[in-house]
Amino acid sequence: MSFSITDPSPRLTVDIVIFCLRKGELQTLLVKRGIEPFRDCWALPGGFVLYNESPDAAAQRELAEEAGIMHVYLEQLYTFGAPERDPRGHVVTVAYYALIPSADIYLQAGSDAIDAAWHNVQAPPPLAFDHAHILQYAVQRLRYKLEYTAAGFHLLPDEFTLSELQTAYEIVLNEKLDKRNFRRKLAESGVLVSTDRYRGGSEGRPALLYRYREDADPEVKARRLFP
Amino acid sequence: MSFSITDPSPRLTVDIVIFCLRKGELQTLLVKRGIEPFRDCWALPGGFVLYNESPDAAAQRELAEEAGIMHVYLEQLYTFGAPERDPRGHVVTVAYYALIPSADIYLQAGSDAIDAAWHNVQAPPPLAFDHAHILQYAVQRLRYKLEYTAAGFHLLPDEFTLSELQTAYEIVLNEKLDKRNFRRKLAESGVLVSTDRYRGGSEGRPALLYRYREDADPEVKARRLFP
Repeated sequence: MSFSITDPSPRLTVDIVIFCLRKGELQTLLVKRGIEPFRDCWALPGGFVLYNESPDAAAQRELAEEAGIMHVYLEQLYTFGAPERDPRGHVVTVAYYALIPSADIYLQAGSDAIDAAWHNVQAPPPLAFDHAHILQYAVQRLRYKLEYTAAGFHLLPDEFTLSELQTAYEIVLNEKLDKRNFRRKLAESGVLVSTDRYRGGSEGRPALLYRYREDADPEVKARRLFP
Repeated sequence: MSFSITDPSPRLTVDIVIFCLRKGELQTLLVKRGIEPFRDCWALPGGFVLYNESPDAAAQRELAEEAGIMHVYLEQLYTFGAPERDPRGHVVTVAYYALIPSADIYLQAGSDAIDAAWHNVQAPPPLAFDHAHILQYAVQRLRYKLEYTAAGFHLLPDEFTLSELQTAYEIVLNEKLDKRNFRRKLAESGVLVSTDRYRGGSEGRPALLYRYREDADPEVKARRLFP
């Protein structure tokens, strides 16, 4: 390549906000850093982008290495690059968020992480770098996606009751939803199909199980503001 | 900084898709490259991110240097980083798009551009790097933004008739819209306010001029799929 390596240039990392509905909360997976800077501090999983590795591939690699997670919904969030965000020097990070339907995954400590644990996004511990800001941005994006698209199904098991779906929305949006309104909008959106299976509801009466339509493309199914 | 500069690391650039409605088309500003690679080829305006310069600041600097454009709507689009996208080596680019309300701006050739001109996004010339892909992606994002948010006003003059607004939407979306439907949705969205001024319409009858509400936040005014 024709670049001079003596040219100062920002370094590039990826960081991933991994969302999961656990214990009635929207949680995210954090790793405890085993190296400086911010040693022993919680951080988003992530790491440097290798030469000849796309940021997308780096995010997938870090997901696998640090959290043992593969084949999940992964979307680029935003690229953060304020010069002061890393004490080592100028590091630009491409942030991603991942949606996983179940927390029953194997957590493995990556090479620079000494611990990993799920945390409520509403009350995270102090985070390294600008990761608290990135987490907050990711929560906003997830809420937006849930309101405008059918992306929510990535957080749910394959089949679910309408009550379970409403609960999932309420947890992510952090607000109570009107049941009648919610079901009417769902019916209008046409993203769900009913199965022929039931699950015993908490109030005794078995509840019909639904799943998302296989062609429920998040973008296509969203409502349009203009005709 | 504690990084070894002999570590190979991707380099970082920014590229900007500048949108403007001109001559009944959605157009974008392209620059002709004066240096290798892709010398004499059209490309999106852009350049390397400097050390201790955020990508956002780099995009604003390139907008000013290569196109003389300042104080316009600028939004990060996506970060593209396939290893093969630049023949010089691995270059990751943070892509942006800008919306400008008028093309009456001074075009200046930047240090590595020998020409600059507006092109119809529907029929661009062959573009350097993966810029054709980035342009296509930006057009999709703009259409999405226009359908779901009030971002369109950044492409319009401060005051406009409803016919002019519909024409703007039709140009960007590349489809004819039903006038009655369009006006009903507009009224429902509540993003416009009428002025007390009129402009002579093409059919003779003066048309009332409108403007966007000052608090017409693009995100807030978008419709929600779920309650």
